[in-house]
Amino acid sequence: MSELTQISQVRCFGGWVGTYTHQSTVNNCQMRFAVYLPPKAKSDDNLPVLYWLSGLTCTEENFITKSGALKYAAKHGIVIVAPDTSPRGEGVPDDPEGSWDFGLGAGFYVNATQAPWQQHYQMYDYIRAELPALIEQNFGVDKHRKSISGHSMGGHGALVIALKNPECYRSVSAFAPIVAPTQCPWGEKAFSHYLGADKTAWLEYDACHLVAHHQGRKLPLFVSQGNADGFLAEQLKPELLVSACQQAKHPLQLERHPEYDHSYFFIASFIEQHMLYHANALNED
Amino acid sequence: MSELTQISQVRCFGGWVGTYTHQSTVNNCQMRFAVYLPPKAKSDDNLPVLYWLSGLTCTEENFITKSGALKYAAKHGIVIVAPDTSPRGEGVPDDPEGSWDFGLGAGFYVNATQAPWQQHYQMYDYIRAELPALIEQNFGVDKHRKSISGHSMGGHGALVIALKNPECYRSVSAFAPIVAPTQCPWGEKAFSHYLGADKTAWLEYDACHLVAHHQGRKLPLFVSQGNADGFLAEQLKPELLVSACQQAKHPLQLERHPEYDHSYFFIASFIEQHMLYHANALNED
Repeated sequence: MSELTQISQVRCFGGWVGTYTHQSTVNNCQMRFAVYLPPKAKSDDNLPVLYWLSGLTCTEENFITKSGALKYAAKHGIVIVAPDTSPRGEGVPDDPEGSWDFGLGAGFYVNATQAPWQQHYQMYDYIRAELPALIEQNFGVDKHRKSISGHSMGGHGALVIALKNPECYRSVSAFAPIVAPTQCPWGEKAFSHYLGADKTAWLEYDACHLVAHHQGRKLPLFVSQGNADGFLAEQLKPELLVSACQQAKHPLQLERHPEYDHSYFFIASFIEQHMLYHANALNED
Repeated sequence: MSELTQISQVRCFGGWVGTYTHQSTVNNCQMRFAVYLPPKAKSDDNLPVLYWLSGLTCTEENFITKSGALKYAAKHGIVIVAPDTSPRGEGVPDDPEGSWDFGLGAGFYVNATQAPWQQHYQMYDYIRAELPALIEQNFGVDKHRKSISGHSMGGHGALVIALKNPECYRSVSAFAPIVAPTQCPWGEKAFSHYLGADKTAWLEYDACHLVAHHQGRKLPLFVSQGNADGFLAEQLKPELLVSACQQAKHPLQLERHPEYDHSYFFIASFIEQHMLYHANALNED
């Protein structure tokens, strides 16, 4: 287990926001993440954790500074962990064309199998296993009370990771997720590079496919989507998730919000509701 | 009166965040500002306004994205107006050394009298007169219900503008303000350039001096200050404001918060309290 280095620590809503770096074994590079410890952490070393996965171009910082979630994490006594969205640093390959939808800031929460990506881009294993183990070793958290959420690419990550590991999470939610990356340009581009030309390998990271072929506990899905989201029709396609969940009788609560877009102004407007949703699941006995 | 150009409009907490640009007469350049219209703006064209002045290096964006204030503006039916912190654009001079504490992003809310600054750096008149007139012409607001707040350099601006125009504002508050710019390095640098070597000209922009020499209505001052603020001892010096207010019997509510720093994490933690303070003043009959 690698050691944590604290980069910063700032007081917020009676708790603390810390930024940390560590040597990731699976990603084979230094990774950064942010942790919010609520006031209750002073007296309780067995707190539940919400993992937040950010979207394209984001780092560990966006959610912590813009979402307004910390107030509710403080209120409900939840630790928030917000990792970076890809491996970074010297030797970590990026899109040769430098575009923002693939490579750095765009790890897509998969385990890459193709060169040159597979040496560093192992974000699925990082979020599912390495990061929680690190958090559980270094902070006073309850490893049996985890939830997961995210936005856009991170909403895809949250849905996929929860659907593949329903026993590990108390609840899952997403804002404007990419629900079917095998059927949209962002996903097709990223998966063809990370996973190769054989599209059958892509399916295990497609939330709609996972719903359709789900076995075991059906963790309900809670999704918020703005109707004025500029990526709605081409990239996000929530109707595919509705259809998959209907066919598979998988519980889905999809809330569509007229006139809201894809930004953090949308997330901030509904984060209180998502935090309460997770608090109810995490604080249940 | 110049015309407004809307750059963006995004839905948030049931209302709308807009970013605008216009040709400023007093600053002699294009200026930007952000406006939050709460849901109540749909049915009420006579809403109160809170003007927010940001600190060094900020633009019209920081407060809107990071403070968490919009939720409370929505709740209390308050319009927020957040201007940029200096003139900008071609022909607007900047610190020749390119430092962040003077020039662009550091207008200090004064009317510059010295070359080359006086052609554009007229932020005092901009905030006091030109911007409110523009807002009152273009949005459904009540020109008799204005309040003002700000952070750091913007806290200085809010205190100075309210102290010099107490009849224009219902309430004033500040986070970590520069209370005595004539007695700290940031203020000494900026004022010597904008206002010249004669320090008597500086005094009209020094909150502590204005408190000591105040005439007319004594608008109470509400100030929040973090005790772990890295700028506390050298730049902010709240004890000078305490002393000035005690001597002049000027009402001051100074709240000091142990372990909080100078960042937006501090502002976000206490913005609900400030918004309620202003709502009580603005929504009084």
